[in-house]
Amino acid sequence: MQQSTHDDLIQLRRDLHRHPEPAWREFYTTSRIVEECERIGVDELLVGPDVLADGERNAVPDDDELQRWHDRAREVGAREDVLERTEGGYTGAIAILDRGDGPTVGLRVDIDGLLREEATDDDHTPVREGFRSETEGMHACGHDAHATIGIGVLEAIKESDFAGTLKVFFQPGEEMVAGGKPMAKGGHLDDVDALLAVHVGLDHPTGEIVAGVGGFLAVHHFRADFAGTPAHAGGKPNAGENAVQAMATAIQNLYAIPRHEDGPTRVNAGMVGGGTATNIIPEAAFIEGEVRGETTELMEYTRERAERVLDNAAGMHGCSVELSTVGEAPSATSDQALVDIVLDAATENTDVDTPTERDDLGGSEDATYLMQRVQEHGGHAAYVGVGTDHPGGHHTATFDVDEESIAIGVDVLTDSILGIDDQEQ
Amino acid sequence: MQQSTHDDLIQLRRDLHRHPEPAWREFYTTSRIVEECERIGVDELLVGPDVLADGERNAVPDDDELQRWHDRAREVGAREDVLERTEGGYTGAIAILDRGDGPTVGLRVDIDGLLREEATDDDHTPVREGFRSETEGMHACGHDAHATIGIGVLEAIKESDFAGTLKVFFQPGEEMVAGGKPMAKGGHLDDVDALLAVHVGLDHPTGEIVAGVGGFLAVHHFRADFAGTPAHAGGKPNAGENAVQAMATAIQNLYAIPRHEDGPTRVNAGMVGGGTATNIIPEAAFIEGEVRGETTELMEYTRERAERVLDNAAGMHGCSVELSTVGEAPSATSDQALVDIVLDAATENTDVDTPTERDDLGGSEDATYLMQRVQEHGGHAAYVGVGTDHPGGHHTATFDVDEESIAIGVDVLTDSILGIDDQEQ
Amino acid sequence: MQQSTHDDLIQLRRDLHRHPEPAWREFYTTSRIVEECERIGVDELLVGPDVLADGERNAVPDDDELQRWHDRAREVGAREDVLERTEGGYTGAIAILDRGDGPTVGLRVDIDGLLREEATDDDHTPVREGFRSETEGMHACGHDAHATIGIGVLEAIKESDFAGTLKVFFQPGEEMVAGGKPMAKGGHLDDVDALLAVHVGLDHPTGEIVAGVGGFLAVHHFRADFAGTPAHAGGKPNAGENAVQAMATAIQNLYAIPRHEDGPTRVNAGMVGGGTATNIIPEAAFIEGEVRGETTELMEYTRERAERVLDNAAGMHGCSVELSTVGEAPSATSDQALVDIVLDAATENTDVDTPTERDDLGGSEDATYLMQRVQEHGGHAAYVGVGTDHPGGHHTATFDVDEESIAIGVDVLTDSILGIDDQEQ
Amino acid sequence: MQQSTHDDLIQLRRDLHRHPEPAWREFYTTSRIVEECERIGVDELLVGPDVLADGERNAVPDDDELQRWHDRAREVGAREDVLERTEGGYTGAIAILDRGDGPTVGLRVDIDGLLREEATDDDHTPVREGFRSETEGMHACGHDAHATIGIGVLEAIKESDFAGTLKVFFQPGEEMVAGGKPMAKGGHLDDVDALLAVHVGLDHPTGEIVAGVGGFLAVHHFRADFAGTPAHAGGKPNAGENAVQAMATAIQNLYAIPRHEDGPTRVNAGMVGGGTATNIIPEAAFIEGEVRGETTELMEYTRERAERVLDNAAGMHGCSVELSTVGEAPSATSDQALVDIVLDAATENTDVDTPTERDDLGGSEDATYLMQRVQEHGGHAAYVGVGTDHPGGHHTATFDVDEESIAIGVDVLTDSILGIDDQEQ
Repeated sequence: MQQSTHDDLIQLRRDLHRHPEPAWREFYTTSRIVEECERIGVDELLVGPDVLADGERNAVPDDDELQRWHDRAREVGAREDVLERTEGGYTGAIAILDRGDGPTVGLRVDIDGLLREEATDDDHTPVREGFRSETEGMHACGHDAHATIGIGVLEAIKESDFAGTLKVFFQPGEEMVAGGKPMAKGGHLDDVDALLAVHVGLDHPTGEIVAGVGGFLAVHHFRADFAGTPAHAGGKPNAGENAVQAMATAIQNLYAIPRHEDGPTRVNAGMVGGGTATNIIPEAAFIEGEVRGETTELMEYTRERAERVLDNAAGMHGCSVELSTVGEAPSATSDQALVDIVLDAATENTDVDTPTERDDLGGSEDATYLMQRVQEHGGHAAYVGVGTDHPGGHHTATFDVDEESIAIGVDVLTDSILGIDDQEQ
Repeated sequence: MQQSTHDDLIQLRRDLHRHPEPAWREFYTTSRIVEECERIGVDELLVGPDVLADGERNAVPDDDELQRWHDRAREVGAREDVLERTEGGYTGAIAILDRGDGPTVGLRVDIDGLLREEATDDDHTPVREGFRSETEGMHACGHDAHATIGIGVLEAIKESDFAGTLKVFFQPGEEMVAGGKPMAKGGHLDDVDALLAVHVGLDHPTGEIVAGVGGFLAVHHFRADFAGTPAHAGGKPNAGENAVQAMATAIQNLYAIPRHEDGPTRVNAGMVGGGTATNIIPEAAFIEGEVRGETTELMEYTRERAERVLDNAAGMHGCSVELSTVGEAPSATSDQALVDIVLDAATENTDVDTPTERDDLGGSEDATYLMQRVQEHGGHAAYVGVGTDHPGGHHTATFDVDEESIAIGVDVLTDSILGIDDQEQ
Repeated sequence: MQQSTHDDLIQLRRDLHRHPEPAWREFYTTSRIVEECERIGVDELLVGPDVLADGERNAVPDDDELQRWHDRAREVGAREDVLERTEGGYTGAIAILDRGDGPTVGLRVDIDGLLREEATDDDHTPVREGFRSETEGMHACGHDAHATIGIGVLEAIKESDFAGTLKVFFQPGEEMVAGGKPMAKGGHLDDVDALLAVHVGLDHPTGEIVAGVGGFLAVHHFRADFAGTPAHAGGKPNAGENAVQAMATAIQNLYAIPRHEDGPTRVNAGMVGGGTATNIIPEAAFIEGEVRGETTELMEYTRERAERVLDNAAGMHGCSVELSTVGEAPSATSDQALVDIVLDAATENTDVDTPTERDDLGGSEDATYLMQRVQEHGGHAAYVGVGTDHPGGHHTATFDVDEESIAIGVDVLTDSILGIDDQEQ
Repeated sequence: MQQSTHDDLIQLRRDLHRHPEPAWREFYTTSRIVEECERIGVDELLVGPDVLADGERNAVPDDDELQRWHDRAREVGAREDVLERTEGGYTGAIAILDRGDGPTVGLRVDIDGLLREEATDDDHTPVREGFRSETEGMHACGHDAHATIGIGVLEAIKESDFAGTLKVFFQPGEEMVAGGKPMAKGGHLDDVDALLAVHVGLDHPTGEIVAGVGGFLAVHHFRADFAGTPAHAGGKPNAGENAVQAMATAIQNLYAIPRHEDGPTRVNAGMVGGGTATNIIPEAAFIEGEVRGETTELMEYTRERAERVLDNAAGMHGCSVELSTVGEAPSATSDQALVDIVLDAATENTDVDTPTERDDLGGSEDATYLMQRVQEHGGHAAYVGVGTDHPGGHHTATFDVDEESIAIGVDVLTDSILGIDDQEQ
């Protein structure tokens, strides 16, 4: 990669890092992506409702919250035309290079930030170098680097002799496992012959590449709202129907859902709360939680048991319960044919010390929706890990990426796409 | 009562109603009380740290929160000298009339509001008449009327032939059962021969007086903070120590504390919460709750069991737990000698349809600290109920007092104080 | 009382003490009662199905268990004709003296023993004096003395100038709160003008009489059987539906049923169990428990909540639950008119040091069914406590009665019945 | 195998089937094994305390229970000299053939039955053919066939040209995972170069052989006894310390022990109980349960968490808890070198349709103690599965073995032992 390109990519990554935006609020981010794609000169650029299947978005914030981030994006320079097309939270984009006959290759990068505070210490590079987050969120999982890699690959392929079609999917809302499903169902993956998804870090240092990440846990992220009847806790305890008792009974029994013979499952009641005052029998309570499984079936088993627990915990305490889906993602696997191509590209790259064939994620990712969609239509998919030195763990305040790894990611992915092209000829 | 006085009291009550302030934040309220006391011309007026025993205040908000309300009080006209003396949350006041030899009589009124939103409908009198709350709180328990009655009684006794000393205790922080203890321990009750406390409403309509309210449940209001260890819920569930599991186990077992042969007890986990994200094993959780008993002993029995539950629930899940007292109040009884005097005063008052000797509160009140203090020093105490039509229940958005009852309260209490005076001569 | 009569009664009591029989198995006991009634010469003696309302007996043991006790009674000398009439567990008897015009007075005594082992130490009188229990049960609540008092009163009234009708109800199955209901519904109480029930001890020493015992807690004694699905705990944990998890969830939530503003309630999961092997997901589990309330309404409130808990605990774990009633008893009160008569009789008795008007039982008793039945038909009822020194507490291995108290009980009850007779004349 | 030998083995198996004996009560079984070994003419035969390490036996029944089975064994013909040596539950035997220089090879077979009733239907072969169980137990897991295979192999090797030493370990108490540890620690395995263990069935039909069974879950089988304080549930609920509440809290939280990132774990509260009467706050309760893990470390993780739960559940309810170990077994693996030899033997056997290299047990087995002991001393071990058609599942009333598989097992194991011998030459 040319030094000038590399420097530009780092500037882009730092700009995105300064403006982390959570799910369905990636207004500034989308605007910057649009600017870059137009600069490069893509053949087609999809932005807005066309990118995401109708009615498939979960966990969309209310209008006030959307408006607040929309306004903020405008203040920091988002383009009016992009703001207009993404109104209502239709963030993300699909950029298409049409280079004639040849395979249709997809690259999926996610673009959202997390709602957590970034470290303020001087030994945290974004602080020292002046690009610490300016919103209430943080790019604590490297999606700023992912978006940047997407732009880098677009530019590199544009300048290459690639024959065929390249689609780069800039996906919103991965942290809530909310964006993958509507993007997968949007139809733009159905003609993709080979899909690559990418993630930096994952405890792999700069110079490592994992050609085929697997071990995705299927996940269902839910919210349960219990509604009971309040009463004065001193005077009329019998008149209440206690939503906090329902919630506590549910928590105890959720964690006690039986393990499954077929493989690992997980349950977590990760955010809970209820009640308004110590002297009132609590009228409302909630559990926001998740179930996971090594396979989609194992996740579904756990989910069914969880729903049975939640329903009966409510009924036991005279409460009703409303369940809603916040996000979800299936399990998926990386196809060997693609893994081989990526492994070759990594092996030939002199900046890669340790090309690795396979490793497990041990977590969840909604890229699996896109991978599954491609595989259902007869294509192949692989999830590629790009090592990066990261001082703090993913999702922590001191997470940061080693910017050298961005160029490595761009190069390996570009070479992999060219490798796919070669093979299809 | 003269119409002009009555009108003035209603204006005062409405002014206080417009500015409800929660525990330790009654800066504007205290300022208004000071103004009224100075207008009346009391002999001594205690404001600030002298009113409240050192180190006995629980549930004092942090400096930011105190400052916010302090600033707000200044903006709406609180006097600078009062603001200075109440800085740090030393709210409330004691007004003293010294009328020579005779008994020392105390009157306790509480002055704080609740943190809840007031109704906005036009059929809610404060809306229609333009004195709806202007803060984020609400006088939803009639303490605006109580403070006003305190001023009314001061003025009436000032103009009477009362001989002796009258102390009116304008107590802060009753809603958190936090203000009674430091005021009781402040020393100004130790020479009181007879103490009257007053509450409006309590499901008694205008025209009813309860001479001796009893059935106070002793209460302990606590907060338990559980601290565990976070971990990724998908990747390393075993590495976490789950504070939400500790909390849920505690909730289930708190409600299951055995009933007691000696009388009613109560437990409530009224506000609970924990966790930060669905995919993180929760590191922190809390329970803010209360235990009560018909007697202080019954409350203490329940409290000991509750602490055993909280400690072991934490230990079971590898967490620590920190317990703190938010508020507390003992049980107490109204002395027959005083009840008789109040009953006589009520019976002779032509606005009182239904003088009642005794009724039960069935809740908690930290006036009991003051009553107990007086009784321990050989004096008598009675808690007087002043009926008032209230459209909504106590602590609800549509609570309001029938302002006619303010004059009734002032008259019956004034006559009771004069009755005490007569008896002691 | 004549010494010879007294001695006979003590011999009778010791014979009954040697042969304690639990609910519906009082075959020998009923036979002995029949013998005594025939010796005295009663006018009518009801034994067998006529005594107990059809279909109202709960907790009847299975045929094998009944047969075992039936055989045993025959071995130790029960009369064949009585054994025939009581077959199938129709134990108990009603003895009637018809003495012409006058009130119909009832006396209820219970006759069953408990299934627990008696002390074996020499300082336990039944051991030393050679009348320790010869069955697997024990008269650990004094019902041997009650039956004896019933015989003593019959004999004394027979020899008195009583005018009217006396019915003595020898009730089976009180310890299971199972015998009161079928006897009450049997119809033989409907013409009773005044009913006395009697209990010895209750922490009152010899020489005390309580004329009107009250404070009966209404009780419902239930059994819940959970049925799930077994599975190998190591190989297929997911294939099971765990009845022990259902049971544990139910226990936790039963004890946590909210207290009631109107008075005391109680819950106890007194006997529980489940599962067959450590490596099998438990297929079955049970809770045998009880709910109580100061009033029948409070008991019913608690019962409804308990059933909601049990149903949902089963549903939560994919189990079914079957609920059955083992026993029950309402609350009841002693009528003042009768209490006054008994108090007079006690006061005039020189062996009574401490006649007491009223005291609380603080437990449950199915005499309340009989009392309620009489009261519903316009009669009066009182439950009389006859003090007796008892070395161990009720239901413990060292319980015993001071035999001197038997004569006191007979005398006071006889005099009370004569007092009723006098008043009605 | 010769037909006559085959018939003899089937007669032996049926005799053992008629006399199933549970852990430490295999008196008749041991006697029969001794008879067979003496008939064959082994060089050394260890019976009694020498076979089992001192103080390492768990779950030994009390003297009455041992005596009852001891007496029964005598009645059905056990030899007096064997009964004498096995007194106190020192059951099992080790038979040794010493054939000069060569490897020391071990074969482990378990010999105990289960305490469960056998089917009574005519289509159950043991019923139809007249060898249904005559004790209260059943050979529902095929250990009758295992012991028979042990005898068959001894005889076959005796008649072969095997050079070296063969030790056959007839192990008691496998069903309680109680016998493996004391036999492993007895010292007789320390010189074994190659150990084979064998199990029939495991859902493999007749004609299948699994050369190396793996996937043993390490297991810890525990008993927790909770001790609290009883009290009258109606009169003094507060005076009790409720062991059933402690038990229920423990059950809920045991099942909720977090899953582990490193592999499967299991928890089961398989047998639980508590309380004595519905109106007594339960004084005692117990949980007999197990924890498992794919590795010994995973089992230990779960065990530590379980003990934390049990301790704190007791403490929470004012109870004490006593923990005891009923049985345990580590995880283990089959060594490839031995698996290869067995696979060769199976492949060459014409009665074997399906030689399989490896399969998972998915349960627990205390043969792992013996395997581990051999491996720690530098030897190899393999656990061999011998397919058999079994109409009902293992541990069910209709389990039975296809007797044709006994000869296959003897042949394959004999050939494997000869194969080991060949390789070592």
